Amino acid sequence: MKVITIERKVLEKNDALARKNRDLLLGHKIFTINLVSSPGSGKTTLIERTLEKIRDSVHIAVIEGDVQTDLDARRVSAYGVPTIQLLTNGGCHLEASLVSDALAEIDLDDVELLIIENVGNLVCPANYDLGENEKVVVLSVTEGDDKPLKYPAMFHQASALVVNKIDLVPYLQCNMDALVRNALAINPRLRVFRLSSTTGRGIEAWTSWLTATVDRCRKEIPV
Amino acid sequence: MKVITIERKVLEKNDALARKNRDLLLGHKIFTINLVSSPGSGKTTLIERTLEKIRDSVHIAVIEGDVQTDLDARRVSAYGVPTIQLLTNGGCHLEASLVSDALAEIDLDDVELLIIENVGNLVCPANYDLGENEKVVVLSVTEGDDKPLKYPAMFHQASALVVNKIDLVPYLQCNMDALVRNALAINPRLRVFRLSSTTGRGIEAWTSWLTATVDRCRKEIPV
Repeated sequence: MKVITIERKVLEKNDALARKNRDLLLGHKIFTINLVSSPGSGKTTLIERTLEKIRDSVHIAVIEGDVQTDLDARRVSAYGVPTIQLLTNGGCHLEASLVSDALAEIDLDDVELLIIENVGNLVCPANYDLGENEKVVVLSVTEGDDKPLKYPAMFHQASALVVNKIDLVPYLQCNMDALVRNALAINPRLRVFRLSSTTGRGIEAWTSWLTATVDRCRKEIPV
Repeated sequence: MKVITIERKVLEKNDALARKNRDLLLGHKIFTINLVSSPGSGKTTLIERTLEKIRDSVHIAVIEGDVQTDLDARRVSAYGVPTIQLLTNGGCHLEASLVSDALAEIDLDDVELLIIENVGNLVCPANYDLGENEKVVVLSVTEGDDKPLKYPAMFHQASALVVNKIDLVPYLQCNMDALVRNALAINPRLRVFRLSSTTGRGIEAWTSWLTATVDRCRKEIPV
């Protein structure tokens, strides 16, 4: 007996569309990251700092995913990069079909790095491939060091972890080493960046990695 | 033509079970709150401070909802109150059926206040009535003052807002007045508490309200 649940059918359809997105993006040698986190972990501020640092050397486009409002897209587009706002109208995660619609609005020949900011939600976006190269999970130290254990799926799916707001550690009971240890216990392959998007501390390692990976992608070296 | 989507059928079934939970709880004159927030906003710490303050005067039981792990339930049960752990195993919100299972495990004759801590998720739990009297949304100032606008459904559904971690305001770019203004723009009826579960500042107004409301509930005065 074969059981196909509705959930599984939805995911299969999404995966097929994600593969199409991935083929399209790789065909244009674009490196794509899918930024995921809880609400308020600092995804948009991280994008702003990234744009400040490398938009002159790397051609970047941004897709902003939100439940409602275009507040984030307005912040990002102020940096003069192509920005597409996707609204889920109550939906708790982006899907490959929405991203496909957004890609149709971008001149892909002029993009080297695509940043997709997902809806703020540490649960649902884990299961939805958008066609990205890497899922990057952002976790603010203010959320507590136990979060990788409590929401393991997202950390399991991601290939990189940005530990954000490290400037606030002195005022918190959060143990940053325990946080990273917990994340690596879920996924030992996680590439870890510790930074503050507010003060800029640690941002250099992040942008250096992005720049180098974009370069590898353009030379068709597996990233 | 009548269109019934699967989503709507799921919600209708949940609502029916929620009504049963509500009838059961009100029959026992129990005041029930459903605590919702992003991951790491401080729901569990708020419960711990609440227990410290009023567990001697109010009979409290706690239902802990988590995707995985019993970390929170262990923290709460250390305070010697009846604590039930609900695991959604990847699910992004609690449902009335899970809460119904938990209620069967609690001696309701000995409870005056039931605190349900939902899964950390600012999107999905908004639509799922559990049978509570009030949905209380917790928002940490570290998440930023724009969050009520970006995730309006939860603020619309809630009847109270706890602005948490106010001890961190001096180190943030968050404007707490703007945060409250944005929340009230979505829902002018929100009762607002500003507090720090870490330092205890502002916790008195919260526990006084809880105690008074539990008292009204026991006297069958509408809360």
